[in-house]
Amino acid sequence: MDESILVINPNSSQDVTSAIDSACAPLRFQGGPPIECTTLEEGPPGIETQRDVDSVVAPLVRLISSREKQHSAFVIACFSDPALHSAREITRKPVLGIAECGILTALTLGQRVGVMAILKASVARHLRYIAALGVAGRLAAELPVGLGVAELRDEHQTLQRMLRVGKSLCDDHGADVIVMGCAGMAPYRERLQDALGTPVVEPTQAAVAMAVGRVRLAWHAGSDS
Amino acid sequence: MDESILVINPNSSQDVTSAIDSACAPLRFQGGPPIECTTLEEGPPGIETQRDVDSVVAPLVRLISSREKQHSAFVIACFSDPALHSAREITRKPVLGIAECGILTALTLGQRVGVMAILKASVARHLRYIAALGVAGRLAAELPVGLGVAELRDEHQTLQRMLRVGKSLCDDHGADVIVMGCAGMAPYRERLQDALGTPVVEPTQAAVAMAVGRVRLAWHAGSDS
Amino acid sequence: MDESILVINPNSSQDVTSAIDSACAPLRFQGGPPIECTTLEEGPPGIETQRDVDSVVAPLVRLISSREKQHSAFVIACFSDPALHSAREITRKPVLGIAECGILTALTLGQRVGVMAILKASVARHLRYIAALGVAGRLAAELPVGLGVAELRDEHQTLQRMLRVGKSLCDDHGADVIVMGCAGMAPYRERLQDALGTPVVEPTQAAVAMAVGRVRLAWHAGSDS
Amino acid sequence: MDESILVINPNSSQDVTSAIDSACAPLRFQGGPPIECTTLEEGPPGIETQRDVDSVVAPLVRLISSREKQHSAFVIACFSDPALHSAREITRKPVLGIAECGILTALTLGQRVGVMAILKASVARHLRYIAALGVAGRLAAELPVGLGVAELRDEHQTLQRMLRVGKSLCDDHGADVIVMGCAGMAPYRERLQDALGTPVVEPTQAAVAMAVGRVRLAWHAGSDS
Amino acid sequence: MDESILVINPNSSQDVTSAIDSACAPLRFQGGPPIECTTLEEGPPGIETQRDVDSVVAPLVRLISSREKQHSAFVIACFSDPALHSAREITRKPVLGIAECGILTALTLGQRVGVMAILKASVARHLRYIAALGVAGRLAAELPVGLGVAELRDEHQTLQRMLRVGKSLCDDHGADVIVMGCAGMAPYRERLQDALGTPVVEPTQAAVAMAVGRVRLAWHAGSDS
Amino acid sequence: MDESILVINPNSSQDVTSAIDSACAPLRFQGGPPIECTTLEEGPPGIETQRDVDSVVAPLVRLISSREKQHSAFVIACFSDPALHSAREITRKPVLGIAECGILTALTLGQRVGVMAILKASVARHLRYIAALGVAGRLAAELPVGLGVAELRDEHQTLQRMLRVGKSLCDDHGADVIVMGCAGMAPYRERLQDALGTPVVEPTQAAVAMAVGRVRLAWHAGSDS
Repeated sequence: MDESILVINPNSSQDVTSAIDSACAPLRFQGGPPIECTTLEEGPPGIETQRDVDSVVAPLVRLISSREKQHSAFVIACFSDPALHSAREITRKPVLGIAECGILTALTLGQRVGVMAILKASVARHLRYIAALGVAGRLAAELPVGLGVAELRDEHQTLQRMLRVGKSLCDDHGADVIVMGCAGMAPYRERLQDALGTPVVEPTQAAVAMAVGRVRLAWHAGSDS
Repeated sequence: MDESILVINPNSSQDVTSAIDSACAPLRFQGGPPIECTTLEEGPPGIETQRDVDSVVAPLVRLISSREKQHSAFVIACFSDPALHSAREITRKPVLGIAECGILTALTLGQRVGVMAILKASVARHLRYIAALGVAGRLAAELPVGLGVAELRDEHQTLQRMLRVGKSLCDDHGADVIVMGCAGMAPYRERLQDALGTPVVEPTQAAVAMAVGRVRLAWHAGSDS
Repeated sequence: MDESILVINPNSSQDVTSAIDSACAPLRFQGGPPIECTTLEEGPPGIETQRDVDSVVAPLVRLISSREKQHSAFVIACFSDPALHSAREITRKPVLGIAECGILTALTLGQRVGVMAILKASVARHLRYIAALGVAGRLAAELPVGLGVAELRDEHQTLQRMLRVGKSLCDDHGADVIVMGCAGMAPYRERLQDALGTPVVEPTQAAVAMAVGRVRLAWHAGSDS
Repeated sequence: MDESILVINPNSSQDVTSAIDSACAPLRFQGGPPIECTTLEEGPPGIETQRDVDSVVAPLVRLISSREKQHSAFVIACFSDPALHSAREITRKPVLGIAECGILTALTLGQRVGVMAILKASVARHLRYIAALGVAGRLAAELPVGLGVAELRDEHQTLQRMLRVGKSLCDDHGADVIVMGCAGMAPYRERLQDALGTPVVEPTQAAVAMAVGRVRLAWHAGSDS
Repeated sequence: MDESILVINPNSSQDVTSAIDSACAPLRFQGGPPIECTTLEEGPPGIETQRDVDSVVAPLVRLISSREKQHSAFVIACFSDPALHSAREITRKPVLGIAECGILTALTLGQRVGVMAILKASVARHLRYIAALGVAGRLAAELPVGLGVAELRDEHQTLQRMLRVGKSLCDDHGADVIVMGCAGMAPYRERLQDALGTPVVEPTQAAVAMAVGRVRLAWHAGSDS
Repeated sequence: MDESILVINPNSSQDVTSAIDSACAPLRFQGGPPIECTTLEEGPPGIETQRDVDSVVAPLVRLISSREKQHSAFVIACFSDPALHSAREITRKPVLGIAECGILTALTLGQRVGVMAILKASVARHLRYIAALGVAGRLAAELPVGLGVAELRDEHQTLQRMLRVGKSLCDDHGADVIVMGCAGMAPYRERLQDALGTPVVEPTQAAVAMAVGRVRLAWHAGSDS
C-alpha cells in the first residue's frame, strides 16, 4: 500500500517548495510513508494578503480532489492554512494545516507561544486564526520580521531580523517557544534555535510529523482501518 | 541508531498495557521507530484519584531517567498526564502525554471536543488540566461513564455506557469529536466510532502518532539534529 | 453625493435577494443613503458548506472592486461573511458582514446570544468565526433548524422548526437574544420574535443599520471626511 | 413621525456637549432622524471616578424616563456607560452606550483594539466593563493620557499626549484600531487618526451611527414595527 | 482597638438582616472582631432589578463614609455587589462584596460553580458581573428559582424550588459547588447542602469569613499595619 | 474545641517557616483559632522545579492525614500549591493553598494582578496553574526576580530585585496589585508595598486570613456544623 503524504506549497515559488522538501528530510523513514512535496502552480509567488489566501482555495481543493486516491494524507504548507476546512469536506483522509499543527505542537514544547510572521499585514490574519483555534490564551505575541516571501532569500538580512524579533518575543513578551509563521522560513530554523536557546518550531515539519503517524489511523466517522 | 518510542502505562494492570500495545500496532512501520509498551510496576491497578496521579510521578521520573539514553521519545499513557512536566525537566527528548496529545489532536478533527471520563471524580481533575492547556473554549463537555479501570473489562456494559455518554456528548452538548479519557478504553474505539458516526480519538494512538515523526526532530533549545 | 449602500446577496437565489430587500425597507430614509440589493450571479443557490463560502470570495471581491467608486458602503449578506477581510483590503470604505454585525448588535440587546443556523454543517463553521471574533463567551449556543436555503421557502415547516429551536436556545441554553444565522430567514423575524417573546436580530438589518450611519464617517487611516 | 435620537452628555460641561454635537454633524441626514444633544444638569463637571459614574445613574434614568415618548433612541455619551442597563429596564426603545458601541464598532475596523483613557483611575473601571462585555480577548491595551476632562481643553498638550499614547498602543501593544475613551476627546479624532495612520473611533459617533439605523427597527420582545 | 466588621444589608427588609445576622453567628469568635449587621434604611424591600442595584449606591457610600472610622472592614450583603468599587474609592479599609467573595470562595470548593439566582431578571446582571470578575470559565450555569426576595419567606416553596434548581445545576450543567445568589437565601443553606450532597456557599458567610482575617492586614498602597 | 490552623512549609528551610510564622502574627486573635506553623522535614531546601513540587506531595498528604483530627484547617505554604487536590480527597476540612488564596484575594484588591516569581523556571509552572484556576484574564504578567529560595536571605539584593520587577509589573504590564510568588518573600512585603505604592499580597497571609473564618463553617457535602 502506498501511504504517501502529499505536502502542497500553495505559492508558486519553487525554492519554497525546495526548502519544505529539505525540511521533510528527517521525517522520511525507510519503510515509512513517502513524503512528496509539490507546488501549486496557480498560486501567487508568496501568500501575503487575505486575497492571496483566498485565491488559492479553489486550486488547492482541485489538486487535493484530483489526487485524493493516491495519497494517505495531505499537508497544506502555508501558515494561513488556506482551504483547510474546504478540503476536509471532500476527503475523509487527514488534511493538516501547518499553522494548526505548528501551533498545537508548540503547545507541547513551551507555555507561551511566540509567532514570527513575515509581514505586519499577516499578523491580524493569523490572530483571527489563532482565536478561531481557541488557543489565544497561550499566545505570547506575534511579531513580523518585515520581509516578504521573496525577501526571505537574503540570508543575512533574514537571520538578523529573525534574531531581533525572536529576542523580543522571548524577552519582552515572555515566549518560551517560537513558531515560524511562514513555510519559507524553514531554512533558518536550526540557526535561530541555536542562537535563541529556545525551541523553534518549523510548522511544515510539525504538520508532517503529525501526519507520519496519522496516515495509519482512520479516525473518521462511521468506518475504520 | 535505535529510535524507539517507550510508551509507559503508569498503572500496574497488564491488560491495560496489552490494550495499549494493540492500539499501537497500526503505528509500527517497517523501518519506522520501534514502539515498546511497558507497565509501571509501582503504579496502582488504576489511576482514579488525584492521589493515584501524584503517586506515580516519582516512579515515572525514575523509569524515564533510567531509560533516557535508550529511547528517542516517551509517552505517558494515562489521561491525567502524570509526571509530564517533571519528566520534561530531566530530558530534552520528547515526552508526550496522552491527554495533551489526545486533546490537541482532536482539535484537528472537530470543532467541539467531548471527553469521556471513567469516573465522575476524574472530571474535575481533567477540567483543571484542560483549562491549564488553554483550550477550554473548544470543550463541549466531559462526562463520565461511571466505571473504574477494572470494570472496563466488562465489554457489554462498557460499550453500552460509552454509547449513551457519547450520544449525550454529541446531541446534548454539541460535540463533533470524542476523546476517550482513559488509556484502558482503547479496545472500544472502533466500535464506538462506528456506532456514533463521529470521530473518536484514542489518546495513546494520538500521542504515539505525534511521537513517530517527532523522534526525528530535535526541537529543543541550543542544539539540533 | 451618492452615498448608497450596496447589499450583496452572495447566493444566486433571487428570492433571498428579494427577502433582503424587503428587510431593508424600514432603513430607507428620505434623504438617507439609498440601499441597493443585488445578487451575486456567480454564487451557488445557497451557501451551505465551507466550499460554498470559499467559492464566492473571488466574484465578491470583483463585484465590490468594480463598484467601489459608486457606493459608500458594502454589506455582504451571508452569515459566513465570505470575502469580508479580502474586500477590506481593496477599499477604505466600510465593508460590513452580516454575521459580524448581527452578532455585535445582539450584544447590545441581550446577555447571551443564541444563533439559529440552517444546517448542522454550518454550526462548526460559525463557531470558528465567533471564536475568531473574540465573543464566544457571550454565545449561549448555536443550533440548526435543519433546513437548507431552498427549503426555507416552506413557511409552515420553517416557522415550526424555528420556534422549536428558538425555545431550546432560550430555555435549555439560556439565550436572551436570538440571531438568525442565514439571510434567507429574514421573512420570519417578526413572527419568531412575537412567538418567543425574545428579541430576534435579522442580521442583514443589523448590518445595514450600522452602515446607514457609517457611510458618513471616514474612519480609516491617514485621511478623513 | 419624530424619530429623533437624544444624545445625553452625563457631565455638566457644556463644551463637552458642544463637542459631541459637532461630532454628530456628519450623521445628520436630511430626512434622517434628528439628533439632539443635551447636558445632564445634575452631572459633575467630568466623570472621572466610579462615584461620578454612579452619581449620574438616577438623574439619567429620570431624564430618559421623562423624555421616553419624545425620542426614538437614546445615547449615553460617557465612556463608562452609566445607567445603561437601568435605562434599558424602563424603555423598549434602543438605549446605546458609547463605550459599548465604540468598542463593538472598533471590532469591525481592526483586530486589536487600543483604548485611550483620560486618567489612570479610569483604566481599571473600563477593564471591568470590557471584560463584562466579553471582548477582552480583542483588547490590545488601555492606556491613560493623564488628563482630566477639564484639561482636555488645552489643545496642544492634549494632542501631544494622545499622540504619545496612541503610538505606544500601536507599537508596544499591537493595536491596529484606537478607541477614544472619553466623549470629551471628540475634537481630536481626525488629527489623531491622520498622525497615527491608524483608524481612530470617536465613540459618540459610533453610537449615534448605530442608532441612526436602529431607530427604524423594533427589535424587542413580543411586538414589532 | 475595635476591629468590628460592619455587614450592610442594602435592602430594607429587617428579616433579611436577621437572617444575615444568624448566618454570621459561627464567625463570631470570643476575642475576634465583632460582627455587626445593619439595614440600609433607604434601600428597597428587595434588590431585584438593575435600578434597585443602582438606587442603593449613594446611600451605601454615605453609610460607609459616615462609619468609616468606627469599623475595620465593610461587607455589602447583596449579590449584585452594589457600590463596591465606589466604596473602595473612599476608604482604604477592606470593602468586600458577597458576590465577589462568594464566587471566589466557591472556586476553592469545587471546579464548576453553579449560581442560584432569585429571579430570571437577575441572571443577566450576575453574568455581566461574573464576566467582569474574569472567572466566567469556572461557571457551570446560573439558574433562577423564580421567587422574589419577599417570597423567600415561604419555606416550603422556597426549599422545593432550590432543590430542583440545585439538582439541575449539578446534573444538567455539571456544577460541583453551589453559590446562593441572594443574601436572603441564607436560612436554607444547610438543608440545601444536605439534600444535594454538594457544597453550598452562603455568600455573606463567605465574605465575612474573608473579612475576619483581613481586618488585621493592611494591604493597601503606601502604608502598613 | 481546638480549632487550630496548621500551616505547612513544604520546604525544609526553617527560616522560611520562621518568616511564615511571623507573617501570621497579625492573624492571631485572642480567642481566635491558634495558628501553628510547621516544616515538612522531607521537603527540599527550596521548591524550585516541578520535580520539587511533585516530590513533596506524598509527605504532605501523610502529614495532613496524620494530623487531620487535631486541626480545623490546613494551609499549604508553597506558591505551587503542591498536594492541594490530593489533600482535599482525604479530609473534608478546609485545605487552602497559598497560590490559590493569594491570587483570589488579589482579585479583591486590584484589577490586574502582577505575580513576582523567584526563578524564571517557576513562571511557566505558575502560568499553567493560573490558567487551571480560570483567572488568567486577570493576570497582568508574572516576572521572576531571578533568585532561588536560599538567595532570598540577602536582604539588600532581594529588595532591589523586587523593586525593579515590581515597577515593571506596574509600569510596563499594567498591574495594580502584586502577589508575592513564594512564601519565602514574606519578610519583604511591607517594604515593597511602601516603595511601590501598590497593594502587595503576601500569599500565606492571604490563605491564613481566609482560613481564620473558614474554620467555623462546614461547607462540605452532606453534613453541616
